[in-house]
Amino acid sequence: MQWDVLSFGETMIRLSVPVGERLEMTSSLEVRIGGAESNVAVALARLGRRAAWCSVLPQNPLGRRIAGELRWHGVDISPVHWVERGRVGIYFLDTGAAPRPTQVLYDRAGSAIATADPDSIDLSMVARARLLHLTGITPALSPACREIARRLVERAGQLGVPLCFDVNYRSLLWTPAEAAEALAPFCRAASVLICGRGDASTIWGLDGSPDQVLAGLVELFHAPVTVLTLGDEGALAQTGDGQRFQAPPVQATVVDRVGAGDAFAAGFLHGYLDDGDVARALRYGVALAALKLTLHGDLALVTLAELEAIVAGIPRAIVR
Amino acid sequence: MQWDVLSFGETMIRLSVPVGERLEMTSSLEVRIGGAESNVAVALARLGRRAAWCSVLPQNPLGRRIAGELRWHGVDISPVHWVERGRVGIYFLDTGAAPRPTQVLYDRAGSAIATADPDSIDLSMVARARLLHLTGITPALSPACREIARRLVERAGQLGVPLCFDVNYRSLLWTPAEAAEALAPFCRAASVLICGRGDASTIWGLDGSPDQVLAGLVELFHAPVTVLTLGDEGALAQTGDGQRFQAPPVQATVVDRVGAGDAFAAGFLHGYLDDGDVARALRYGVALAALKLTLHGDLALVTLAELEAIVAGIPRAIVR
Amino acid sequence: MQWDVLSFGETMIRLSVPVGERLEMTSSLEVRIGGAESNVAVALARLGRRAAWCSVLPQNPLGRRIAGELRWHGVDISPVHWVERGRVGIYFLDTGAAPRPTQVLYDRAGSAIATADPDSIDLSMVARARLLHLTGITPALSPACREIARRLVERAGQLGVPLCFDVNYRSLLWTPAEAAEALAPFCRAASVLICGRGDASTIWGLDGSPDQVLAGLVELFHAPVTVLTLGDEGALAQTGDGQRFQAPPVQATVVDRVGAGDAFAAGFLHGYLDDGDVARALRYGVALAALKLTLHGDLALVTLAELEAIVAGIPRAIVR
Amino acid sequence: MQWDVLSFGETMIRLSVPVGERLEMTSSLEVRIGGAESNVAVALARLGRRAAWCSVLPQNPLGRRIAGELRWHGVDISPVHWVERGRVGIYFLDTGAAPRPTQVLYDRAGSAIATADPDSIDLSMVARARLLHLTGITPALSPACREIARRLVERAGQLGVPLCFDVNYRSLLWTPAEAAEALAPFCRAASVLICGRGDASTIWGLDGSPDQVLAGLVELFHAPVTVLTLGDEGALAQTGDGQRFQAPPVQATVVDRVGAGDAFAAGFLHGYLDDGDVARALRYGVALAALKLTLHGDLALVTLAELEAIVAGIPRAIVR
Amino acid sequence: MQWDVLSFGETMIRLSVPVGERLEMTSSLEVRIGGAESNVAVALARLGRRAAWCSVLPQNPLGRRIAGELRWHGVDISPVHWVERGRVGIYFLDTGAAPRPTQVLYDRAGSAIATADPDSIDLSMVARARLLHLTGITPALSPACREIARRLVERAGQLGVPLCFDVNYRSLLWTPAEAAEALAPFCRAASVLICGRGDASTIWGLDGSPDQVLAGLVELFHAPVTVLTLGDEGALAQTGDGQRFQAPPVQATVVDRVGAGDAFAAGFLHGYLDDGDVARALRYGVALAALKLTLHGDLALVTLAELEAIVAGIPRAIVR
Amino acid sequence: MQWDVLSFGETMIRLSVPVGERLEMTSSLEVRIGGAESNVAVALARLGRRAAWCSVLPQNPLGRRIAGELRWHGVDISPVHWVERGRVGIYFLDTGAAPRPTQVLYDRAGSAIATADPDSIDLSMVARARLLHLTGITPALSPACREIARRLVERAGQLGVPLCFDVNYRSLLWTPAEAAEALAPFCRAASVLICGRGDASTIWGLDGSPDQVLAGLVELFHAPVTVLTLGDEGALAQTGDGQRFQAPPVQATVVDRVGAGDAFAAGFLHGYLDDGDVARALRYGVALAALKLTLHGDLALVTLAELEAIVAGIPRAIVR
Repeated sequence: MQWDVLSFGETMIRLSVPVGERLEMTSSLEVRIGGAESNVAVALARLGRRAAWCSVLPQNPLGRRIAGELRWHGVDISPVHWVERGRVGIYFLDTGAAPRPTQVLYDRAGSAIATADPDSIDLSMVARARLLHLTGITPALSPACREIARRLVERAGQLGVPLCFDVNYRSLLWTPAEAAEALAPFCRAASVLICGRGDASTIWGLDGSPDQVLAGLVELFHAPVTVLTLGDEGALAQTGDGQRFQAPPVQATVVDRVGAGDAFAAGFLHGYLDDGDVARALRYGVALAALKLTLHGDLALVTLAELEAIVAGIPRAIVR
Repeated sequence: MQWDVLSFGETMIRLSVPVGERLEMTSSLEVRIGGAESNVAVALARLGRRAAWCSVLPQNPLGRRIAGELRWHGVDISPVHWVERGRVGIYFLDTGAAPRPTQVLYDRAGSAIATADPDSIDLSMVARARLLHLTGITPALSPACREIARRLVERAGQLGVPLCFDVNYRSLLWTPAEAAEALAPFCRAASVLICGRGDASTIWGLDGSPDQVLAGLVELFHAPVTVLTLGDEGALAQTGDGQRFQAPPVQATVVDRVGAGDAFAAGFLHGYLDDGDVARALRYGVALAALKLTLHGDLALVTLAELEAIVAGIPRAIVR
Repeated sequence: MQWDVLSFGETMIRLSVPVGERLEMTSSLEVRIGGAESNVAVALARLGRRAAWCSVLPQNPLGRRIAGELRWHGVDISPVHWVERGRVGIYFLDTGAAPRPTQVLYDRAGSAIATADPDSIDLSMVARARLLHLTGITPALSPACREIARRLVERAGQLGVPLCFDVNYRSLLWTPAEAAEALAPFCRAASVLICGRGDASTIWGLDGSPDQVLAGLVELFHAPVTVLTLGDEGALAQTGDGQRFQAPPVQATVVDRVGAGDAFAAGFLHGYLDDGDVARALRYGVALAALKLTLHGDLALVTLAELEAIVAGIPRAIVR
Repeated sequence: MQWDVLSFGETMIRLSVPVGERLEMTSSLEVRIGGAESNVAVALARLGRRAAWCSVLPQNPLGRRIAGELRWHGVDISPVHWVERGRVGIYFLDTGAAPRPTQVLYDRAGSAIATADPDSIDLSMVARARLLHLTGITPALSPACREIARRLVERAGQLGVPLCFDVNYRSLLWTPAEAAEALAPFCRAASVLICGRGDASTIWGLDGSPDQVLAGLVELFHAPVTVLTLGDEGALAQTGDGQRFQAPPVQATVVDRVGAGDAFAAGFLHGYLDDGDVARALRYGVALAALKLTLHGDLALVTLAELEAIVAGIPRAIVR
Repeated sequence: MQWDVLSFGETMIRLSVPVGERLEMTSSLEVRIGGAESNVAVALARLGRRAAWCSVLPQNPLGRRIAGELRWHGVDISPVHWVERGRVGIYFLDTGAAPRPTQVLYDRAGSAIATADPDSIDLSMVARARLLHLTGITPALSPACREIARRLVERAGQLGVPLCFDVNYRSLLWTPAEAAEALAPFCRAASVLICGRGDASTIWGLDGSPDQVLAGLVELFHAPVTVLTLGDEGALAQTGDGQRFQAPPVQATVVDRVGAGDAFAAGFLHGYLDDGDVARALRYGVALAALKLTLHGDLALVTLAELEAIVAGIPRAIVR
Repeated sequence: MQWDVLSFGETMIRLSVPVGERLEMTSSLEVRIGGAESNVAVALARLGRRAAWCSVLPQNPLGRRIAGELRWHGVDISPVHWVERGRVGIYFLDTGAAPRPTQVLYDRAGSAIATADPDSIDLSMVARARLLHLTGITPALSPACREIARRLVERAGQLGVPLCFDVNYRSLLWTPAEAAEALAPFCRAASVLICGRGDASTIWGLDGSPDQVLAGLVELFHAPVTVLTLGDEGALAQTGDGQRFQAPPVQATVVDRVGAGDAFAAGFLHGYLDDGDVARALRYGVALAALKLTLHGDLALVTLAELEAIVAGIPRAIVR
């Protein structure tokens, strides 16, 4: 099989607290899975794309759950490297409501992927993909993960497989300075570079208007396509030829914020993959992120028809 | 007993997905009942009216549930025709959040009522009612249901029992053209004709300002009372003598939209029944619809005191 | 891919009531999927076998759920025929406790598979399987399903693919006489014929000791392997050369009976597939059925290691 | 309407803890209703009998819930006396598992019925009933309730309406000595006297074999029909002419014990009402009690067909 | 131990209905605890203050639950007077959504604290506290509770322990006139007097602008610190020297309103206790109330760090 | 305060799967806490003993939850050493049903306690205890934990504080040979040595009749009191003077096995602490273990009165 997109990264068990409860006292936790790269793969697979995901999973019920749920949505997980022992990373989500932020408690140290031997990842799979998708979380996990990411990018470069890189800074994993240093080679290698406004400020000190921030990113990394996401203000992009594109926001009722950025990336790639139409890609990205906000969990559990109805701007409260 | 209102229609088992989940993946469904006509009957019975409901139900746990829940609220279900075999219609509610619409998946084909023999309905019950309430859903279910509705209206006409007809177009059941043709005789026979702004546009192409749409409906059907509902913009009405009435909207936190239109109809009838005061009827309709929006399920589970507090405009966040 | 087992049949949405509640009054239903043939495929896939399942599913959330959940467990659903319209069969499970039986309320009439065009099923897939698995439920669903099953068996016969046929009488779908007539050709074509003691009595009037009933089945159909399941008394088998095999029961705490027979079939096939060892196959069948009894839902959600620990007779209350 | 059975008593909101949890720490409580006399009325109404229930309820959500749930099952609650103020009794059920007993925490003091004015109960309703059903709980609630019960029995005596009296001793409400004194007139007035073996021992010191205990009850009160219930050993009865009857137990998986005695009484009355067949009445009583044990809540939520299948001794684990 | 704050009052079992359901029909209730004074104690203990609470509790599972949950949060409950018999007050919360108000159904009459002997409360504990916190609910419960509150205030006055008094009018317990008379001595004795705008209007007829209402309270009671809370408009205060302070509101998503006023009092005291900084106290009060609004239950389950982030005005949607 | 019992050990967050579900697929997990030593402390505190618990906890919501829940039950957690960073151990409980074992998935490596500096534990607390309770789990966690346990025992020896040591072998943490070596010094230092029959066999190869196994333990370690637990066959003990004691089993419905051994230890200590009555101690141990089996979670959530009713042999199914 030829995959449209191959991604590599860590997927965790996500244990979340119902709205209005606190992790400290809750009597039950909702079990889901979440990981930036597999979130993208799931969304793409659901939209009809051939999406593959590589990672390292232990042979235990939690590892099998991650595998199973990804298969449910049609992601090809055959690249996964299975290990006999090891743990699955966990993250607890203490769901917030303004002004109380949603708080993530990571318990991901020492996971099977973080402690993996880089040689255990078969780089030849890159040749099967039309595009490689990575995020800035993977290099933050461990030196081993950084090395794997480096090798994947290297191989993609050799094969001419374009890289989509989503910056995704995680303040609980490393400092801005560490991130700036480690992420630079990935940003430079990216054909599509996606970055949120807050991350641009935190890591590279890029402040000012969206246009200014976008210009700053372009100047730093000269990606063929640079995308700046603005949360509930939509998204911007600039192509190598200096063209600017913009997508207005789609208003959404926020049920769960986590995963919206990944949904944007997936929507963007879906719109971009066939003919590189950046304007359309932005609209799909913004629309899919808005749909994701209405759903519990990291995953954008929508259909292509639902996405296209939003992109087409058809407002409906009930379909019956 | 003399009933204030008699209604006839299909009531289904309503299986709904918790907010933020998808029907495709949910591990549990909430079980309730819903049907436009019984929703009206429940709301009226709870407000102290003598409300009766006729339908066709099979002798199985789902049929008994519908009967039991309606009895709970005080609806007289003695007119129901029970059959040994047959199925109860089901509808799945994939609850939305903007911009994702709530989506209804009907599984109601072949239900006991849709396949009923029109002769099995005893038309003599119409004589026991002060008013007959029907909706545009029933004629859409099957030729048999359309025939039953036709006979009920005919009998009501013979007996001088006024008809309240709520248009309630369902795009998943038929086309606008089919509806326009089938609903015309009901609209013409109605003493109270209720129509939503969207349905007026879809079925009869009546667009423009609310006043224009209302005028269009009056011109088409010349009902003694024509009511146009405007969703979160309140409601309008015109009486046979050309008088116009208007009720401003009541702001509501939307928990569940389904059934709000039926709550409007029930509130309108409650305010209208005793002395035909259309202005008051509109206010009750709008207020009961707003209260319904705050509740899961099709039913307006409120008391007369709660309704009157809203109509009186007493704003309170907590009563303690 | 070469499949170890290919099955064909209907899978339904299973809506079950928590223990101690009644369908008539429950406020929520647990959502799972169930279908005799896919139950077998899931169990086999989980044990490491390449299992494929063919059916007809509509393109709606319920159809996608069935597909997704089967993919989760590793079943190859590529043979499924998808249709734009149509319904998914539903079954309600009113869970019992002695002396109150578990009661199934089928709402499966008119499902996509029951109304399928036999020509829509591509028979060439049979060539990819080492064994074809069918049950007596499929011929009971509709003439179309009976025809599809007939064609599959015919093709398997032409190709030399052995048939495993599990009788599975459903009293709510047809009468014993209808079943006896319709099932005869399948029983005669089977290389492995599996029948429960109660069904042997109901359909063919085979009563008496287990040995006598087994002898009766052998005499009727002369299958190369005839298996008689005895519920909580284990299972018996006889091979074409007249050899008898027996597996003692495995005591189990019954959480949910539904699917235990399918788990038996899957365990039997797992033990049988590699070298036709009927004694071992019976032990695996009985053990997997016992494990299934401890789980809610139709599916035998166990691992090969768990199954082998039971077959090996290692009793443990806690593993820690 | 002519009622088959009229009962009078207190119905409470029942708040129960899931199995394996403790009231002291539980994060949720299941809400149901329970009251010995309304339990009997519900069971009888579900079996097709015309059952009426009288009590005193306040006009608040808890009072309306009791009314609504009884109407659901078809009980005629028109005799209920509604009061503007007052509380509904509550009982908390700390569900046990051997050897830990199920523990009831009553919070019923000062309820609307306990503080009712006896003159508020219209005794003329007794004339509409074929049989009056009371239990020994009512006289224990308050002097007012004892007086109401006394008047109902007096009026029934005047009208020739037979009394069924179920002893139902509650150790948390009064002492054995108090009960012995207060219950004597009711036991002497009863046409059908039902008593559990434990209560006979506690109140009247009747120990020994079931036969001896039954003989003791007969000697004390000379009821036309005296019934002794033996829990999981079935039930015995003696008629005024000295005839003895016996029903063997029906084995049951115990989900919830509360209400089994009331189910027995209802089953007994259902079997007895038409022609006074005590042998059949005992069988129905024992079977309905066994069915109730399989259900959460006080209520015997079964159908006549389900009851008759048990009485007929048809053992089935699944019906499908 | 020296306590920062000692409070006295009734804590109830709080049984609440999920959003969108009605008490009249809900199948489950969430169990929490709530009481204005213990709410304050919990919030303070969680912020690191030594908080003690005195009340009267019965030795039963509900009494133990209240004690246990308060201990969880670090409240010192050693002052509690335990009694062998008696009931715990209950309140049902029928959760609302605009325009439907949240409705409290109190079932607290005759609780252990309401019927306590004032002599059973050991007044010497007052000497261990830096501040005594009471609310206007306690005097409304019963004459005994009013007497206990009077004695506590008297003793605090003798010992020079300042009193914080939160007016907290409860319309379901008494009339404005009764409250005005009973609360006057408490308001006059308070060093810190806290009153909501609505209560000031209802009890003392103080209407007009917030400044005018505050002036009215100052004129009536001349408290060293008078605080006026304005709901979602922030809070005002005036000190004995005529200085005015104001805190702007903090916008919050309202999950549950109950307890927000108590959170304000706790936040205010936390900011005020160390050096009497009223401006800071107001900011802490408003911020803690906003955080409480985002949580189910009466309790402000937040940490000091979370509170300080809000006071510092750091807006974040996700921390990760 | 003088403590009756001081314990030291790890307490984890316990995430358990509802009965009949699998960890691999469950959509929710129940959150509780569990740790052999704190289980004992909770049970003792609930029975009225002064119980203290020492451990190492991180300052995060999971650490606070453990602390809070222990405080709820009255355990003195002042000895806990809090650390700024670090993780809480987690264990997943895949609840079984015969023949499927309950399976524990430990995720406890690298927890705050396992990585603690032994010098961070203040040994002086031992002087405040009448008895020190340790289990064989602590030495298995890490070299640091083994060293802490060693120091505690050493200090207890110096101070003359008796040690109760519960062997508690965990096969997922170490091998029998490792355990045999590491546990020997603890067993030799114990005044009360508690060992389960299976552990005696696994670690020391002690097989044969209960009497023989007990004799083997006595011979190996010469504890003043040696206790052998036999699961559902009761327990045996021998004192230093050679006296034998025995407690028959108490039959129990098993809801959750985990923690029953800890409940035995707590019951034993409760019966033993005041006057060293081993016979009574065994009866309390067996009874408390039986009660624990009826409850979800590790904790024996019972009262002294409930325990004494079981010890006294009063059988009751319902208390009302």
